[in-house]
Amino acid sequence: MRTSRQEYHAPMPHPTRSFWGWGYDDSQLGAEELSTVRALVEARLGVPCPPPLAPPSLDAVRLPSPCLAPPPALAPIVSQARYDRAAHTYGKAYRDIVRGLDGDFAPAPDAVAYPRTEAEVIAVLAWCDERGLSAIPYGGGSSTVGGVEARRDEGRGAVSIDLGRLGQVLEIDHVSRAARIQGGILGPALEAALRPHGLSLRHYPQSFELSTLGGWIATRSGGHFATLHTHIEDFVEGLRVITPRGVVATRRLPASGAGPSPDRLFAGSEGALGIVTEAWMRLHERPRFRAAATVRFRQFLEAAAAARALGQSGLHPTNCRLLDAAEAQANGAGDGTEHLLLVAFESADHPLEAWMDRALALCREHGGAHKEGVGRTRTGDEGERDGAAGAWRSMFLRAPYLRDGCCRLGLIAETFETAVTWDRFPAFHASVMEATRAATLRIAGAASVTCRLTHVYPDGAAPYFTVIAPGKPGSQVQMWDEIKAAAAEAILAGGGTITHHHAVGRDHRPWYDRERPDLFAEMLRAAKRAVDPGAIMNPGVLV
Amino acid sequence: MRTSRQEYHAPMPHPTRSFWGWGYDDSQLGAEELSTVRALVEARLGVPCPPPLAPPSLDAVRLPSPCLAPPPALAPIVSQARYDRAAHTYGKAYRDIVRGLDGDFAPAPDAVAYPRTEAEVIAVLAWCDERGLSAIPYGGGSSTVGGVEARRDEGRGAVSIDLGRLGQVLEIDHVSRAARIQGGILGPALEAALRPHGLSLRHYPQSFELSTLGGWIATRSGGHFATLHTHIEDFVEGLRVITPRGVVATRRLPASGAGPSPDRLFAGSEGALGIVTEAWMRLHERPRFRAAATVRFRQFLEAAAAARALGQSGLHPTNCRLLDAAEAQANGAGDGTEHLLLVAFESADHPLEAWMDRALALCREHGGAHKEGVGRTRTGDEGERDGAAGAWRSMFLRAPYLRDGCCRLGLIAETFETAVTWDRFPAFHASVMEATRAATLRIAGAASVTCRLTHVYPDGAAPYFTVIAPGKPGSQVQMWDEIKAAAAEAILAGGGTITHHHAVGRDHRPWYDRERPDLFAEMLRAAKRAVDPGAIMNPGVLV
Repeated sequence: MRTSRQEYHAPMPHPTRSFWGWGYDDSQLGAEELSTVRALVEARLGVPCPPPLAPPSLDAVRLPSPCLAPPPALAPIVSQARYDRAAHTYGKAYRDIVRGLDGDFAPAPDAVAYPRTEAEVIAVLAWCDERGLSAIPYGGGSSTVGGVEARRDEGRGAVSIDLGRLGQVLEIDHVSRAARIQGGILGPALEAALRPHGLSLRHYPQSFELSTLGGWIATRSGGHFATLHTHIEDFVEGLRVITPRGVVATRRLPASGAGPSPDRLFAGSEGALGIVTEAWMRLHERPRFRAAATVRFRQFLEAAAAARALGQSGLHPTNCRLLDAAEAQANGAGDGTEHLLLVAFESADHPLEAWMDRALALCREHGGAHKEGVGRTRTGDEGERDGAAGAWRSMFLRAPYLRDGCCRLGLIAETFETAVTWDRFPAFHASVMEATRAATLRIAGAASVTCRLTHVYPDGAAPYFTVIAPGKPGSQVQMWDEIKAAAAEAILAGGGTITHHHAVGRDHRPWYDRERPDLFAEMLRAAKRAVDPGAIMNPGVLV
Repeated sequence: MRTSRQEYHAPMPHPTRSFWGWGYDDSQLGAEELSTVRALVEARLGVPCPPPLAPPSLDAVRLPSPCLAPPPALAPIVSQARYDRAAHTYGKAYRDIVRGLDGDFAPAPDAVAYPRTEAEVIAVLAWCDERGLSAIPYGGGSSTVGGVEARRDEGRGAVSIDLGRLGQVLEIDHVSRAARIQGGILGPALEAALRPHGLSLRHYPQSFELSTLGGWIATRSGGHFATLHTHIEDFVEGLRVITPRGVVATRRLPASGAGPSPDRLFAGSEGALGIVTEAWMRLHERPRFRAAATVRFRQFLEAAAAARALGQSGLHPTNCRLLDAAEAQANGAGDGTEHLLLVAFESADHPLEAWMDRALALCREHGGAHKEGVGRTRTGDEGERDGAAGAWRSMFLRAPYLRDGCCRLGLIAETFETAVTWDRFPAFHASVMEATRAATLRIAGAASVTCRLTHVYPDGAAPYFTVIAPGKPGSQVQMWDEIKAAAAEAILAGGGTITHHHAVGRDHRPWYDRERPDLFAEMLRAAKRAVDPGAIMNPGVLV
């Protein structure tokens, strides 16, 4: 397959990327790590796992023949090779990995385009528009909600548009601390380009390694900051978006009150309106000061109240993540008896004693205990970290690989997330936990359901749930879909949102369609028709 | 006229409000204050003012006869009295006051509706839709951009919809620190309702006294906070909007990533999409700690660099307003030789020494001098203030009355504002000042053009300009329009926005239409058609 890609002069940006699972082939779990995961999960669930499935072989997967061929002018940037089509079939949801492991690549796009320039993006969209093909923007392919998967039952051809070659930082404005950056850049490349300038976007979603700026903006990605500016769109100064009807370029501004924000209409548009080829992004100076602490609580709701107090304090901690006791233990950061609140501040400007002192005082007022001392660094930004926080962070970045390992062990292993106001939080947390646990037990016979708060606001929080359960071979996707439906119903009934930062995609549509006002959906459809009259852009998401 | 209003059972919320100018009749400038203003302006411009015009008499103003009558079912909430129609003819731009003083009320609406309930809002819109009447939402009537003025050359009837009777705080959520509030509530009534609960929205635009929550949201109003969350939409949890096609009610959430934000499409929609009848708003605990200081600079660009440093520091000062030397002097807060940076922090949670100490250190690093000591308060929120800041604040709230006084003295007196990134700021500031000064001198023969920064961001600032000049009787509107056009051209050429927080209205359309992407305008038009197929909602603004 490598050969065929080279024929098209369209190599993947990373030749060793897995076509069926997360990340790079050489980072996949080895036999030993897989055994460790297996032992941990078996202990947690109390049921044995079957022997691990072997990763699928590209030659053996079931991939339909493409039903179209690119026009000659686009041949240099369009691939129909097995590898490219398989690797662009799915995102990285649990249901995607399971289908990939099973060799099922039925929804594969007919072709994958790798535009190198904005003009080539325009040319690819023109081709799709003319032929009525689904044009599916593909950033890092890390969608967990079916955001990059063609719905082939619509009977039309589909082209996955991989933006990986639009991966440059084009311009840096040191004075305003901002940069003009191409949409297809991956997280690590973006940070590598900014680091020599002492700058950072500091956007670290769990998908950081394999997700792109354009994808973050299109999905309203949530990242590093647990309070204040939590979503990527808070850092957007201006956008350049290619739609089937032409370019939308917004003015680069620190703020404006001139009508509804165009940037905010494209943020979260999930490829349904166009492709983000460039953005002016607000950056940060790399932090010189950092203070981090882990606070332990006996009662989860006490810990949540402490998180609320921090969220309402005006201290704006960089990190304010609450792991429930089971989640902490599963991540190697606790013994399962205490809930952990990870609090951290960072600054390029000033020492953080006053901030952390007050934060810890607030935690104590809410029943928290803090024993280890405060980890502080003054230089570099990868310095020492508080033990539990450090363990959790390592696990955080490794999690997608571990999840794939769980899939190979036949397990159900997935997450879902939401946000809700504080007044509803206690009942909401209880009902979503209970609905999810009950559904999982009923469907799978055993269940681990854990919760953390990933983001904290003055008026609410973003709870994030992880489900591990035994799966029945061949039924895992359906089993998960049923569990997820039960959870989603509890979320909607409890006043939450169907997603805080994972996006809507195709998988969340049934609940999104109930959450968002009907007339707003009509407005969105109308706005889409204005720039995408042929309805080619990522059909099936949002509207 | 009082009698006729009473016949309709539709009293104005404030019976003493001026029908032609800012505020309340009993707060207008007296003869002595007017003399003081006159002396100050004459000294500044070096030319004499003519004797002050008397305020217009309602009986004498030129008001066209209404071209329609309300249906009987709406008669109890619709007035066609002279007072009501005159008082709803204009916003409070300079060009509005001048026309009002001149007795010109040609664009008066044919009727003013005072709905008391959402059902009555719906009924009024249904009437307008059926008859093809312009439906002009009217909050506090403080628009400075022609946002509430009917364009009568369209030949259709116009109804001003005064939301003043939808002025209640409906529900308070202490846990989440939020409240459900009706759109027609005025600033003082809103704060009065929250104060007993220890809460505050802390949104204090210069129009605070006579502007409404719904109006703030519809115009993306900028308020109290000079950094961080500067615009009202940052505090919106959820909205309830009445459109001609029905109600749009968004889910109350602390944050969400579910598609493009519906709240952000209605924020800034300026009445063109619907009427904001309710909003869930994020609130603040009333501050217990405050620290304020005034820092003096010899060089304006040094002061701006200090403001930039503060904006980029992560300290998030509540106030960070830079007055240039002339502006400071005009506001009674300086002798005209030094530029003043007003810095303040406030908190309900913690003392602010560390914050203010670092802020003052940053100012010193940029050449600032701080002599008076830091004003600090620990209880109440109306305590002692630093002298210059206090003087400036008093002037800030009195300014609209003073502006009306200037109008009576035949002067041109108006402001305009924008935002621009820091890299462009020095050249931008110079070119806008120069273009405005040159145009004013050419057109009026004398000019005072001053600048302040009202809001400071990590990547830019919001400059705010004040123009005072002698006017020629009968030509003032045209003179100002020419000056404003020159300023607006410089703003657009320099990379700024046509408005940071004054909105677009009808007056900014020529520049807004060039600033916003054409395809976005098409999207907005399409979205509008989806909820307002008859195009009745505030025609002429935005699209």
